Amino acid sequence: MARVLTPRAEDFPRWYQDLIAKAQLADNGPVRGTMVIRPTAYAIWERIQSEMDARIKAAGAENAYFPLFIPENYLTREAEHVEGFSPELAVVTHGGGKQLAEPVVVRPTSETVIGEFMAKWIDSYRDLPLLLNQWANVVRWEMRPRVFLRTSEFLWQEGHTAHATEADARAYAKKILHEAYEDLMVTVLAMPVLVGRKTDRERFAGATSTYCLEGMMGDGKALQMGTSHELGQNFARAFDIAFSSQSGAREHAWTTSWGTSTRMVGGLIMCHGDDSGLRVPPVLAPIQAHVMIVKGGEGVAEAAARIRDDLKAAGVRVGFDDRVDTPFGRRAVDAELKGYPIRIEVGPRDLAEGNVTVARRFDGSKLSVPVAGVVDAVVTALAADQGALYDAALAHREANTHEVKTLSEALEAAATGWARLPWSAVGVEGEAEANKQAVTVRCL
Amino acid sequence: MARVLTPRAEDFPRWYQDLIAKAQLADNGPVRGTMVIRPTAYAIWERIQSEMDARIKAAGAENAYFPLFIPENYLTREAEHVEGFSPELAVVTHGGGKQLAEPVVVRPTSETVIGEFMAKWIDSYRDLPLLLNQWANVVRWEMRPRVFLRTSEFLWQEGHTAHATEADARAYAKKILHEAYEDLMVTVLAMPVLVGRKTDRERFAGATSTYCLEGMMGDGKALQMGTSHELGQNFARAFDIAFSSQSGAREHAWTTSWGTSTRMVGGLIMCHGDDSGLRVPPVLAPIQAHVMIVKGGEGVAEAAARIRDDLKAAGVRVGFDDRVDTPFGRRAVDAELKGYPIRIEVGPRDLAEGNVTVARRFDGSKLSVPVAGVVDAVVTALAADQGALYDAALAHREANTHEVKTLSEALEAAATGWARLPWSAVGVEGEAEANKQAVTVRCL
Ligand SMILES: [Zn+2]
Ligand SMILES: [Zn+2]
Repeated sequence: MARVLTPRAEDFPRWYQDLIAKAQLADNGPVRGTMVIRPTAYAIWERIQSEMDARIKAAGAENAYFPLFIPENYLTREAEHVEGFSPELAVVTHGGGKQLAEPVVVRPTSETVIGEFMAKWIDSYRDLPLLLNQWANVVRWEMRPRVFLRTSEFLWQEGHTAHATEADARAYAKKILHEAYEDLMVTVLAMPVLVGRKTDRERFAGATSTYCLEGMMGDGKALQMGTSHELGQNFARAFDIAFSSQSGAREHAWTTSWGTSTRMVGGLIMCHGDDSGLRVPPVLAPIQAHVMIVKGGEGVAEAAARIRDDLKAAGVRVGFDDRVDTPFGRRAVDAELKGYPIRIEVGPRDLAEGNVTVARRFDGSKLSVPVAGVVDAVVTALAADQGALYDAALAHREANTHEVKTLSEALEAAATGWARLPWSAVGVEGEAEANKQAVTVRCL
Repeated sequence: MARVLTPRAEDFPRWYQDLIAKAQLADNGPVRGTMVIRPTAYAIWERIQSEMDARIKAAGAENAYFPLFIPENYLTREAEHVEGFSPELAVVTHGGGKQLAEPVVVRPTSETVIGEFMAKWIDSYRDLPLLLNQWANVVRWEMRPRVFLRTSEFLWQEGHTAHATEADARAYAKKILHEAYEDLMVTVLAMPVLVGRKTDRERFAGATSTYCLEGMMGDGKALQMGTSHELGQNFARAFDIAFSSQSGAREHAWTTSWGTSTRMVGGLIMCHGDDSGLRVPPVLAPIQAHVMIVKGGEGVAEAAARIRDDLKAAGVRVGFDDRVDTPFGRRAVDAELKGYPIRIEVGPRDLAEGNVTVARRFDGSKLSVPVAGVVDAVVTALAADQGALYDAALAHREANTHEVKTLSEALEAAATGWARLPWSAVGVEGEAEANKQAVTVRCL
């Protein structure tokens, strides 16, 4: 069979690019660093959104929407914060056919504008906690763009909350970390993420603690899949988010922020993809079972349609391909590229014997199954392959994580994967040393 | 009782502003013309989105995402189109800390960039129809902003489709018009929209036909709730969207575009709102029944929680208010402002007799109902009030629509409502005349 993608072992970044193009997941946008998310990938993002949104709401946060444009002066108010962003800003200088009196910035995050409104909306301890989330696009000018991973515009959710006490803020930052982020990544994305805290050097400007989730990609590198920050009272001071306590005293609130983005789609591809294309975990997949007519023949279309309807009735998300004027081989390659967990191939020869072929994307295995047993076979395979993808990713991570004792051993190990060692063997100076060799301390 | 809002009859625009502020639906953003959509209104928008998205998908379109930033030259390619937009554009001149070689425009619509990619993706008749939709923010600089109705940034869905024949494009533009837009507005928003076609003068630049849906607001004025355009081959020619037909000939596609936005939230408010606040139709309402504890007492909290759980189990979307340290009157006013269709007031006095009070927002009526009968009473009232709101809006429209015969009668009638008359009595010249008096021909 002709090779469809550059093999991962040969050139991992090229494999990633090939896959995104050939599976029709995304294109580069006309303005450098932007991307077009095509329907196949957008459907995956919608599923991630809907699963994440349900978890965020279950954690008590409400959705709202804040403007795309932010006055430039908002970003200078919190000095530590703007330093992290200024080279990344897109600035609008003209609007309504005229030069603007004050330029406005396209939001790189909504932290400042949400802080401003929290200050207006919060009056007493009764208004706390205030738990807000928004789904939005943000812009951070990107010099070395890579689709889904680093793009000048990306889609994300950003949560911003205000609390009466440090303990409450901390508990909430961790609640989102575990109950929304980790739970989604493990149970839906089938990714064994490492959950921990960032070093002082790596944490978000303005945060007192940054918690993170790191996934290991197919090339042994780490990808940050999400972060949750405790901001202490830093932000509340800068934006005067204050409340009168039960005793009547005026106090600054304790705030948190947390975000995940379309970068998760990139992480999913690099975690589960193989040399034939993407593998979408069944719980996530917009199309879990793809019914394909191999070629026309007496009763074939009817049988395929019946299988499709039976699967739907059983609650399976089903795709349907009856484009018999396109060679089956080409369509099968396309289905593998797009990573549908299960393919059901319906053709006249098998059908004459009362069978269809059930193919599992996870391991490429194929099974001849009697028509009456298709639904059971599919449901069983979907459940099994969700676990199998997770286990495979975990085994890959374990095989590429080296227990070491010293910094120099760690730097060596980092060439092919991760190293795990005591923080006392690294320390602030060791971390600076490692950074010079392009190795970062990801997670405490 | 103290008056909460400026009465509609006194000053309709002020009533609208009052309502939006006091029901905490939205705030003005820090950059002029932008808005902050607060959780109460955003939850309504999410329900509209989810109902609309389901209808758009049922009509066969797939969601995708195209970039916020568009090269300036894209907008000059289709001359008729840019004329409609240039004074409304926001232009980014700086990115990544430097002046950009070519300024980029913040999308006022994605028509051009989607056209560009359609041209790349479409090769043969097999690729048609191509049915795309996206949910996104767009920016059109607004000199006289009004929250939800005219804002510099708004949220919308924009559909863009390409077809092999004019008939297919026309059928699809009408399918969306009726099966997605009209159906949602009538059955979910409970708004009796007038569906028709725009005059040549009113139609969208570049369109060959513009179909529209017009709702009558509480002040007798019309609001355009959505549009669906046939673009003929105009766009396809400008962006070279072409395909090889079955006979092998190269032909330009026929395209459509269609959109609805957060303006619908403004229309909803102005159609159904009364002098006590918003009235949200039950089918739409994020909170259909709001359980309120009037004041504490033996078993009150437990009874209220049980009613909440029973309603949830019956599939009702429920709110819960146990803030007994805030006066009940204030909370009841707030619930009326926010327009929850049903309030269930649970207090110790009623409860001693085994009853609670069920209050209908539609007509302000209150009924004492035995606890065991609450679920039935709520389900019945929700169904009745969806119809009642529609009927009331329809009666208002009929009462304010005047059947006339001449243009001068029509202009007179337009002072207090709508006029319906034969197009032959108006004509192109009559329309120009009417426009001078700030009267528009809305719908053919
Ligand atoms: Zn955990
Ligand atoms: Zn209709």
